[in-house]
Amino acid sequence: MDQQLRYTLVLKVYGEDKIFGPGIAELLEKIDCVHSIRKATLEMGMAYSKAWSIIKTAETSLGFPLLSSTTGGAGGGGAVLTDRGRQFLLSYRKFETIVHDFADEIFMEMFGAQA
Amino acid sequence: MDQQLRYTLVLKVYGEDKIFGPGIAELLEKIDCVHSIRKATLEMGMAYSKAWSIIKTAETSLGFPLLSSTTGGAGGGGAVLTDRGRQFLLSYRKFETIVHDFADEIFMEMFGAQA
Repeated sequence: MDQQLRYTLVLKVYGEDKIFGPGIAELLEKIDCVHSIRKATLEMGMAYSKAWSIIKTAETSLGFPLLSSTTGGAGGGGAVLTDRGRQFLLSYRKFETIVHDFADEIFMEMFGAQA
Repeated sequence: MDQQLRYTLVLKVYGEDKIFGPGIAELLEKIDCVHSIRKATLEMGMAYSKAWSIIKTAETSLGFPLLSSTTGGAGGGGAVLTDRGRQFLLSYRKFETIVHDFADEIFMEMFGAQA
């Protein structure tokens, strides 16, 4: 083998439909930063309608809202993560990190390289 | 949450280009069964040209052949996995299994459900 190998690992969470994966996780993190679905989608180059649909599908499957709207205030209001939304996002990222760390070790042992 | 959650995990191995993932693993396993790239692609509903390209890309990145051809004999010859090809396929499947088993446990702990 002439070159270093690396790997990618993608975890997706399903209910009846797909609920959560790297795309919605990044979207929610971006919304949490900029407090706006529209600004987040612009920064990510994602269609607003797609973002809306991903979030609504996940919320329906989960049975609780991921986002809520605030109005007024110094920042003029916007979208924020709900407590349960933030909890679920953190659980997904933690799941990803734990599995990735483990996979790093196994990959190194088996293929002599790292992600 | 109204329903049981499950997850999917996809591991892909890269050199400079993508080398190995669930698709080529399944393709090689099928070829190993039927001793024919063409028969394998027909069973999988994959274009022959796509299979050829996936295998050639992987072989180029890995620097060794995954398949070799046999001619004649009772079965009329066909495609077989090389020793290194089989070894790499088995390593990939083992990597997948070990990481999946670990992820099952973590998912159960964190989301109370299994893949």
